[in-house]
Amino acid sequence: MPENHSPKSTASVLISEVGPRDGLQSVQATMPTEHKRAWIDALVAAGIKEIEVASFVPARLLPQMADAAEVVRHALSHPGVCVMALVPNLKGAEAALRSGVHKLTMPVSASEAHSLANVRKTREQMIEEVRAIARMRNELAPHVKVEAGISTAFGCTLQGQVNEDDVIWLAEECVKAGADESGLSDTTGMANPAQVKRLFTRLRASLGEQAGAAHMHNTRGLGLANCLAAYEVGVRTFDASLGGLGGCPYAPGASGNVVTEDLVFMFEAMGVETGIDLERLFAARQPLSAGLPKEPLYGMTPEAGLPKGWQSTHKRQQVRQA
Amino acid sequence: MPENHSPKSTASVLISEVGPRDGLQSVQATMPTEHKRAWIDALVAAGIKEIEVASFVPARLLPQMADAAEVVRHALSHPGVCVMALVPNLKGAEAALRSGVHKLTMPVSASEAHSLANVRKTREQMIEEVRAIARMRNELAPHVKVEAGISTAFGCTLQGQVNEDDVIWLAEECVKAGADESGLSDTTGMANPAQVKRLFTRLRASLGEQAGAAHMHNTRGLGLANCLAAYEVGVRTFDASLGGLGGCPYAPGASGNVVTEDLVFMFEAMGVETGIDLERLFAARQPLSAGLPKEPLYGMTPEAGLPKGWQSTHKRQQVRQA
Repeated sequence: MPENHSPKSTASVLISEVGPRDGLQSVQATMPTEHKRAWIDALVAAGIKEIEVASFVPARLLPQMADAAEVVRHALSHPGVCVMALVPNLKGAEAALRSGVHKLTMPVSASEAHSLANVRKTREQMIEEVRAIARMRNELAPHVKVEAGISTAFGCTLQGQVNEDDVIWLAEECVKAGADESGLSDTTGMANPAQVKRLFTRLRASLGEQAGAAHMHNTRGLGLANCLAAYEVGVRTFDASLGGLGGCPYAPGASGNVVTEDLVFMFEAMGVETGIDLERLFAARQPLSAGLPKEPLYGMTPEAGLPKGWQSTHKRQQVRQA
Repeated sequence: MPENHSPKSTASVLISEVGPRDGLQSVQATMPTEHKRAWIDALVAAGIKEIEVASFVPARLLPQMADAAEVVRHALSHPGVCVMALVPNLKGAEAALRSGVHKLTMPVSASEAHSLANVRKTREQMIEEVRAIARMRNELAPHVKVEAGISTAFGCTLQGQVNEDDVIWLAEECVKAGADESGLSDTTGMANPAQVKRLFTRLRASLGEQAGAAHMHNTRGLGLANCLAAYEVGVRTFDASLGGLGGCPYAPGASGNVVTEDLVFMFEAMGVETGIDLERLFAARQPLSAGLPKEPLYGMTPEAGLPKGWQSTHKRQQVRQA
């Protein structure tokens, strides 16, 4: 391979797969537990190192997540994988901590309107919830990480624009309240690359290593461009969903997580290591489809296939070192 | 609108609509001439300033383009619009020049295998064709611009990787042979943002203002990310196709031009002026569908609609100046 086609890998990123939580939570059907297990196994086999496997919420509200503790237990059987769960409140956090997860993620909305619609709390009340969760974590399981994901950080379908100062303020307050990190979510698919760069630059200037993941949506087709923009200002953790499953059910008109397959292809093609084998990642669509036979799967790269002469960054490095 | 949501517009881009040529050439059906006219009118009404309206090729090979001269004549009735046509060879160039177009574009493939498959000529033979066309232009219509679009610049489905030195060499040779500008095309959807930045940086370093457009495909979902990458290294002209119509019929597996609607949304959302009204652009899908009723149209932004509180850069500037 000529040198100009195999740039030296100078960086790596962490792809955080959110499908088993964000994806499954957004569809009507409930995936049977054994299918969830098989899907998680396939994701791990492809090299995924962090998975948001469940949401700890009342089963009457989200029957799709009734088996959360069982799914966490199975995911924990894979060594080296960070097992995450979403918790909307202290009660969910307690159940999640007792299940043995490595990391909690809590959605905190920068839009007051979205916060009230999503969790029926103001932003200030959510900061207090983060504080209570962090305190409980310190008591029950001090090794567990707590992440606050600032949702509607780039705009809100209910209130329209969201003030950028508010977003940074909220992320800072969550970290002050005890969150280990705070990332930004484009819950409604309204972000653009210039805005992504501005906000993540400010977030990183303010929080340093406590600045968290970019969670982008592909609602208007800009998902990968926004991930690229975030990468260019130093973000190294990206949420994505296999087959693009999911979105936020409480944000009208929003749809479409970034497709893991396309995101991994983009980074690997750029020479940025993901540690993920794309062919195995495509294979992980099979257990997803088997467990949700009526759900359409998205993704351009699985459709088009890998380009002629494709090599992952890992294989390229092996060739170079041989 | 708070200042941090309305960045001062410091740049503008030219969106070159290729649907009436590239799109229509790639589908089986032939759009009737009156529908082509209505579609072009709708594109102009939306603010499109450059349109590739036809391809001058033998009607027996591409019956979709049999009315090329008539379509050019109609497009020329719109003042202020640059009317382009694709020509594969000297004979096509003569017909195009006699039709009165403002600009010719000629595909010159960086992949020898693709060049032979597409136009049955070697790359060196194509450079000579560019020279002959430029000479004819000088005689018949010296005000007409000639562009050489380097196709398969980022990879080839037939030969795999394409040497980056070859791409730059070919673009330079085309300009030496008399082309006014030379752009780069991701004919096969194999480009990635890092490669796009490398190649356009080299192209611009070598050709300066004679470095031409970025023609990206969305085959693996990276179309907008690649346009963003090109923009970031100074490219200001972007090819796109309404509804994502088209691709290259001679490159197996290739599909999907960048969707004009999504590209314009990305730039306008970033505060980069396109001069295009998105609502009117969405409306231009209607005459396209009317003329090609069986063809699926792509585009995430038309599906999702514009975000709440949306204002184009033009409207934002009017507000600021008022």
